[in-house]
Amino acid sequence: MYKELNNDLIKEYIDETPQVRSLLLDEDESIDRLEVSEIGDGNLNFVYIIKSPRKSLILKQAVPYLRCVGAEYPLSRVRMVFEIEALKIEKEICPQFVPQIYYSSHEMSLVVMQNLDKHKILRGEMINRVLFPKLSEHISTFLADTLFYTTDLFLSSKEKKESVKKFINIELCKITEDFIFTHPYEENETNEYNPRLDMSVVKSFRENRDIKVAVAKMRYKFMSEAQALLHGDLHSGSIMLNQEETFVIDPEFAFYGPIGFDVGIYLANLAMSYLSLEDNEQEYKDYVIGMIKDTWDLFAQKFKANMLNHEKKIKSLQFDYPEGMEHYEYFADSFIRDIFDDSIGFMACEMFRRTVGLAKVADIAGIEDLDRRAQVEKRVLQIASKLITSKYQDIDEVINEII
Amino acid sequence: MYKELNNDLIKEYIDETPQVRSLLLDEDESIDRLEVSEIGDGNLNFVYIIKSPRKSLILKQAVPYLRCVGAEYPLSRVRMVFEIEALKIEKEICPQFVPQIYYSSHEMSLVVMQNLDKHKILRGEMINRVLFPKLSEHISTFLADTLFYTTDLFLSSKEKKESVKKFINIELCKITEDFIFTHPYEENETNEYNPRLDMSVVKSFRENRDIKVAVAKMRYKFMSEAQALLHGDLHSGSIMLNQEETFVIDPEFAFYGPIGFDVGIYLANLAMSYLSLEDNEQEYKDYVIGMIKDTWDLFAQKFKANMLNHEKKIKSLQFDYPEGMEHYEYFADSFIRDIFDDSIGFMACEMFRRTVGLAKVADIAGIEDLDRRAQVEKRVLQIASKLITSKYQDIDEVINEII
Repeated sequence: MYKELNNDLIKEYIDETPQVRSLLLDEDESIDRLEVSEIGDGNLNFVYIIKSPRKSLILKQAVPYLRCVGAEYPLSRVRMVFEIEALKIEKEICPQFVPQIYYSSHEMSLVVMQNLDKHKILRGEMINRVLFPKLSEHISTFLADTLFYTTDLFLSSKEKKESVKKFINIELCKITEDFIFTHPYEENETNEYNPRLDMSVVKSFRENRDIKVAVAKMRYKFMSEAQALLHGDLHSGSIMLNQEETFVIDPEFAFYGPIGFDVGIYLANLAMSYLSLEDNEQEYKDYVIGMIKDTWDLFAQKFKANMLNHEKKIKSLQFDYPEGMEHYEYFADSFIRDIFDDSIGFMACEMFRRTVGLAKVADIAGIEDLDRRAQVEKRVLQIASKLITSKYQDIDEVINEII
Repeated sequence: MYKELNNDLIKEYIDETPQVRSLLLDEDESIDRLEVSEIGDGNLNFVYIIKSPRKSLILKQAVPYLRCVGAEYPLSRVRMVFEIEALKIEKEICPQFVPQIYYSSHEMSLVVMQNLDKHKILRGEMINRVLFPKLSEHISTFLADTLFYTTDLFLSSKEKKESVKKFINIELCKITEDFIFTHPYEENETNEYNPRLDMSVVKSFRENRDIKVAVAKMRYKFMSEAQALLHGDLHSGSIMLNQEETFVIDPEFAFYGPIGFDVGIYLANLAMSYLSLEDNEQEYKDYVIGMIKDTWDLFAQKFKANMLNHEKKIKSLQFDYPEGMEHYEYFADSFIRDIFDDSIGFMACEMFRRTVGLAKVADIAGIEDLDRRAQVEKRVLQIASKLITSKYQDIDEVINEII
């Protein structure tokens, strides 16, 4: 039976849950040796660090409401089922980029996992101007592998459809549909603005035909294209890392959606980090631009390699003729070309909504000089407006819009 | 408990099923007054006509194998659940084009429905050169309404996702994936050829890069784009009609897929009927070409009207500004433009597979002179090759490829 935990109840719960207790304590050790502290700063869940003399781990529990608003905004705990099941699949595909899961309970809506105490959140680290030379290599692999190995390009038709069914994630998709694809493009009471933001810029994109049509199409894609099991919320707050290791966390938004969504959300967060930098920070600027370029290029390379390697292995009858592999490669290029277009479209949507919607990015919202912040925000909106209404040949052309 | 029926067991079953018995007989009438005959000529199920002195009706039962092959090709009876549930939804949306359903049982995998004894199958009627002046008006409404009212454009996000989940139709989608999108494009033992067909034409499309890439993309769309609840098998054998009425039957292939699939399959069957005609049948040729044009143009008009009317009714905040409706209309045009491209792509796939795949169309396969039949088939393959590798502005340009 479900019970909402707190610092005290956690100890009781662990005492009654041998699979967790045994990770932390010897049998004869008292539960009083545990230290529990709540560290969740997310919008949705409670996150506890539990320390014993020999080990520490994380317990994350969903409560039946939206944490950042409170009990009056109900949100079903079933989101934890999606998080648990997505973590398991991602862990299988990319063990090196997903925290160890020690225990999970659908009934209690909780998961017990590796405490990433040697790692920090990417967003904060970028705000602190830390360089991570391995990040783009890591994240491009995470994207190329989790996204490829959950598509119809790899799974059997039956496996894929069963997975789509399992990950029909109604409530959390609705949050994205509303807060990324709807409210930012209308006069909605949930939107929040920097008081110094030039509202004529906001009005002009909100009433621009080509932007509105393009956003409506991206929204429709998000709602109807069941391509791959997405992370669903892959911004720089969902990544914990250090110089050696990178972990992707918090996949409660997981569902079958368009591949470009995960890629685009991540690229948008890099772009906004870049735009938040001061003129004199050239080194970090170059580094962030390099991340945008490398993430896309490496992702595209690796996704294509996944496609070709798989095809070589299964040797499908359809491409079993002398030029067959060459033709399959054309298909791969064309497929990745479509992901590229989608990614840039979703990237733009994330840039709009992080500027005029409810949820901001600390990289920009943390700029204390509101006039400078407003200048950055205006630039974000202008670039997003350009990205969503244009076609680009490659990531370099996109980068040219940003720099 | 499930029991496979036959002519004798049917009477017993009806005797035990008051909801059906009362439709046919008074309480004191003997079950011996019923006449039962099996009329199914489809590939999948058994279909019985049951006649009493006052009424006749149809009982359709799924058996746990593929009827046209036999017990050695197992196919789960769950397909009848999809047929029943799709019939109910289509009936609600388009009552005038869907037979009356009197009774259904998931457990017995059967449905009891209106006997369309004043109606004939469209394919046979086209082979007999019968004109149906109301058909295009009817079928375009069926398409525009069943397809619009099951999309994210109309349903709430939650209703749509629940419907997607309910209609994950693994087995029947697999049949389409194999027999429309895979086997015809490879040397597969299930393919069947007119012995007089010029096999160099077959080989040339099977090894043509642009065709193979385009087919792979249409297959992927079919597998991943959950746009609307499709009929899933809307060829001219799935339509029963007379001069006044049109009914769409047999939606066991129903699932959430790309809107253009239903439209394209139907257009392909019209095009193949056209191509089967002799040079001197100009009147019927003009009529069939008129059907192709009217079906698309009326569908596009009606789908757009559905979009605009709904938007006017809900007045979404996103388009609530002076030019908002005008901008929404651009979105509708762009949306329908995408359906058009998809429709022509799927149309081509259906033309390929009906020529070199397992299932033929009687319009062409029934041509007794095998050399003439081979000429028609070659033309079908050439046109399909053109359609799938080209972009067209409108249906007139497509028609120009066919005539």
